[in-house]
Amino acid sequence: MTKDVEVAEHSDFSAKDYHDPPPAALIDADELTKWSFYRALIAEFIATLLFLYITVLTVIGYKSQTDPAKNADECGGVGILGIAWAFGGMIFILVYCTAGISGGHINPAVTFGLFLARKVSLIRAVMYMIAQCLGAICGVGLVKAFQKAYYDRYGGGANELAPGYNKGVGLGAEIIGTFVLVYTVFSATDPKRNARDSHVPVLAPLPIGFAVFMVHLATIPITGTGINPARSFGAAVIYNKDKAWDDQWIFWVGPFIGAAIAAFYHQYILRAAAIKALGSFRSNA
Amino acid sequence: MTKDVEVAEHSDFSAKDYHDPPPAALIDADELTKWSFYRALIAEFIATLLFLYITVLTVIGYKSQTDPAKNADECGGVGILGIAWAFGGMIFILVYCTAGISGGHINPAVTFGLFLARKVSLIRAVMYMIAQCLGAICGVGLVKAFQKAYYDRYGGGANELAPGYNKGVGLGAEIIGTFVLVYTVFSATDPKRNARDSHVPVLAPLPIGFAVFMVHLATIPITGTGINPARSFGAAVIYNKDKAWDDQWIFWVGPFIGAAIAAFYHQYILRAAAIKALGSFRSNA
Amino acid sequence: MTKDVEVAEHSDFSAKDYHDPPPAALIDADELTKWSFYRALIAEFIATLLFLYITVLTVIGYKSQTDPAKNADECGGVGILGIAWAFGGMIFILVYCTAGISGGHINPAVTFGLFLARKVSLIRAVMYMIAQCLGAICGVGLVKAFQKAYYDRYGGGANELAPGYNKGVGLGAEIIGTFVLVYTVFSATDPKRNARDSHVPVLAPLPIGFAVFMVHLATIPITGTGINPARSFGAAVIYNKDKAWDDQWIFWVGPFIGAAIAAFYHQYILRAAAIKALGSFRSNA
Amino acid sequence: MTKDVEVAEHSDFSAKDYHDPPPAALIDADELTKWSFYRALIAEFIATLLFLYITVLTVIGYKSQTDPAKNADECGGVGILGIAWAFGGMIFILVYCTAGISGGHINPAVTFGLFLARKVSLIRAVMYMIAQCLGAICGVGLVKAFQKAYYDRYGGGANELAPGYNKGVGLGAEIIGTFVLVYTVFSATDPKRNARDSHVPVLAPLPIGFAVFMVHLATIPITGTGINPARSFGAAVIYNKDKAWDDQWIFWVGPFIGAAIAAFYHQYILRAAAIKALGSFRSNA
Repeated sequence: MTKDVEVAEHSDFSAKDYHDPPPAALIDADELTKWSFYRALIAEFIATLLFLYITVLTVIGYKSQTDPAKNADECGGVGILGIAWAFGGMIFILVYCTAGISGGHINPAVTFGLFLARKVSLIRAVMYMIAQCLGAICGVGLVKAFQKAYYDRYGGGANELAPGYNKGVGLGAEIIGTFVLVYTVFSATDPKRNARDSHVPVLAPLPIGFAVFMVHLATIPITGTGINPARSFGAAVIYNKDKAWDDQWIFWVGPFIGAAIAAFYHQYILRAAAIKALGSFRSNA
Repeated sequence: MTKDVEVAEHSDFSAKDYHDPPPAALIDADELTKWSFYRALIAEFIATLLFLYITVLTVIGYKSQTDPAKNADECGGVGILGIAWAFGGMIFILVYCTAGISGGHINPAVTFGLFLARKVSLIRAVMYMIAQCLGAICGVGLVKAFQKAYYDRYGGGANELAPGYNKGVGLGAEIIGTFVLVYTVFSATDPKRNARDSHVPVLAPLPIGFAVFMVHLATIPITGTGINPARSFGAAVIYNKDKAWDDQWIFWVGPFIGAAIAAFYHQYILRAAAIKALGSFRSNA
Repeated sequence: MTKDVEVAEHSDFSAKDYHDPPPAALIDADELTKWSFYRALIAEFIATLLFLYITVLTVIGYKSQTDPAKNADECGGVGILGIAWAFGGMIFILVYCTAGISGGHINPAVTFGLFLARKVSLIRAVMYMIAQCLGAICGVGLVKAFQKAYYDRYGGGANELAPGYNKGVGLGAEIIGTFVLVYTVFSATDPKRNARDSHVPVLAPLPIGFAVFMVHLATIPITGTGINPARSFGAAVIYNKDKAWDDQWIFWVGPFIGAAIAAFYHQYILRAAAIKALGSFRSNA
Repeated sequence: MTKDVEVAEHSDFSAKDYHDPPPAALIDADELTKWSFYRALIAEFIATLLFLYITVLTVIGYKSQTDPAKNADECGGVGILGIAWAFGGMIFILVYCTAGISGGHINPAVTFGLFLARKVSLIRAVMYMIAQCLGAICGVGLVKAFQKAYYDRYGGGANELAPGYNKGVGLGAEIIGTFVLVYTVFSATDPKRNARDSHVPVLAPLPIGFAVFMVHLATIPITGTGINPARSFGAAVIYNKDKAWDDQWIFWVGPFIGAAIAAFYHQYILRAAAIKALGSFRSNA
């Protein structure tokens, strides 16, 4: 046995108290007939709407409060730390609220990673992404409606590469940032962990929210931090300026590559033994 | 079965390990004879008093520390981020402390939402709201007594529409903000979730507190953030200026509409299937 | 039955799955013969030492980083929000670390409140307070040794009444602040709650730490926030200036009154029914 | 029985519901043949890489955003509070993610403390430290690649003694800071605690992350806060300036002494009784 004693992995039950669910079908026509599928789409739509509404409103409010042109107090507002909290904290509560309904993705990159790991079907993945993008557009639209005077002046919460950084750096920052997020999602939702923690997944949304918070602290100065294509797309649609559209590909390619690496890392490096042994203990528990 | 694999909803026990409590009676004269009812009113009163005392004291202290007219350091004080933490953090600890005694509402909008979902009786809802408003008045009164020199000068912690925003925007901000809060309350206290989490509701107060924190980050620049009619009412009574009273209706109508939408969303969209099936498994568990 | 549905208090087991421990003896000579008693004193001493070391070092460091006389950046440093986090966060981790050894008091006011509720013996209470005060003195002494150049210049982390507030306000602020803390301690450690939460007291230190964080946000501008006589005493001993000693009584009388009110509120208002019924279910579980 | 009632230590099962694992062998050649050992090394490497990448990027970004020479807003950026959050928050999520794979050390001082307590073998300890140092170098290397223009100008995230403090103070600050961290690690991973908490170690990573956050609040002004030799070494290798190398020994000697004291305190003071009684209840559970 290993000596992983910090969080005890008791040898006498580690092989029988959990089971990996079988891989999701690529196309599962059956789920289209269920209300729970459409309910999940609604939950993803509403959650992404609220996510963009609260976070972009925080960004615009902060910029308006600290604008020197308005003789505002430069130290007023919630600060960039407050903006990072808004993104991380909203993911915490929204994952908490929707985990039991839709799985709590709220992010096409997370959906893509879980699709690659065969945890959601292709059709569910595509429909989730559409719901997320529509929700993001509506959320940012609400902010524009509420903040007519300030929305355009303060950049509309859109993700753009900051001056002085080339596209490679922006892409790299998005890849690693999304890797941190999706790696945390995989770790938090691992069936093996849930077994070890006595089927108490209550804490899972907290580290996921913190992962988003951390990545924002680090990469706001570089790209404004996307790591969520729906977030970047929704803001670009409503803001609709050239620069935001020119850089848009970074905020899709980067997160999808990062999510793919995280899925590969979790499934083939960290869980390799479990996968090999899958056949033998799929039927117990 | 759905593919909601992130937080596993094990098919083999999902239909039998929880039950929704029966709807609360509209008028339940019986509860008026119980000490636990009056104890709950006292707990709501004290909790709302402490909530307003700590949060409004934080607001006044921050404004006094950063007042340029006093040659104060503009960057001193806890910042608007600190104010948002005060509101969110107090809700976290007060819901934690009173959950077992009164259910931990501390907010007429939450009480209203739970009444609409038939989780509390009409008489309990009305009495809670009265206790909450009295507690809020006493809490703000304490702050005025402690901060005589500063209380009026720094706005008394009252909710008012900021200059440059029309009443529709203020109302909309309060509706969506309260929706975020009451949606989180419903998600956190869902009997289905408690069953899935092995009857461990320990984490419920944390996302509820974070929801309050998030909404304050986003809407302090617009309305100062009410989302709690008792909080707005208590501050208006003690501050007692025209502007606070003129805008007061926004801080009652908005939160009540937001709470009603959240109750509808949770009961009819997210829990629809559960409600239909209610009759069949009410007796087990 | 009550309608306390948010955190369900299931009627069918509420009377039998927990028991209040019998009241502690006033003088329990027996515990003086046990190693676990002296181990608890050592743990309280070390925890209070670390608490004062980290928090006062944070205060001094912040004031040194933002001193305009040094041409320092006024916005540098961790801010008053960071100071409030230091106090709250340290209590979180220290209560977490010492809960199983000494009960995790780290504060004479908490010890006093638990003594009044007959949860610790008189001799244990007195010895804890002595250990806490000695630990606090050593912790602040370390800071002075490390920060020779700055310690005296920046107030030594001592609690003093701020200019413009009279002694009654300071006393009131300490009473209510300590009430918030000790009320949270009683709620978090209630045997009834532990039973309801399936004997999972894991989250208890978090709301206790947040209570300390919240009170610091609110009352740093008034008294610097004591709510812990050992913290105020230790800083006064090392700083040793007249003003700190003149105000010292506020930081003992206030916290002790606040703790007494919290003990009374919890034992006689919130737990009244439980106490009456104590005799009948002490023997089960 | 003691009166440690806050977090109940029920007398009727305290002697039989947990067991300390036997001490790890000094040299365990057997573990070299297992995939789980190499997987643990990979997990430590990746986690330390991500830790340094996010935290040093936050430091550089903050300094670039607030540089007066660039006409930047002095109050912009995430602040020193944000930097402290980045270090503490990353440890929280990385310990959470790697606890089940490698034990979640991410810090040679933690590995050293656990080795002294005979919880990991010598060979595992040495290999972990190498993996951590390599990961740290790669993480800081990525930051330098992304931030070419700013990396050297803003100090490269390297730990150095601040002007005005002598080496003894720096060493002392590192010793006590690491003591706080490693003491929390021991408390959070104590088998006795896990038993008491119903085998629910879910919260363990949170206090560990907070310990890192707290120490950064207190000692950033003195040493920049190491308490992790891999973090200090990785930054020194990439930054490669004399001052960082001259002070480097402080960031190895200090953390190792602090970890040793914490291991001694936990094993010989706090757990003494448990260790004596070990023989008798090793076989049950």
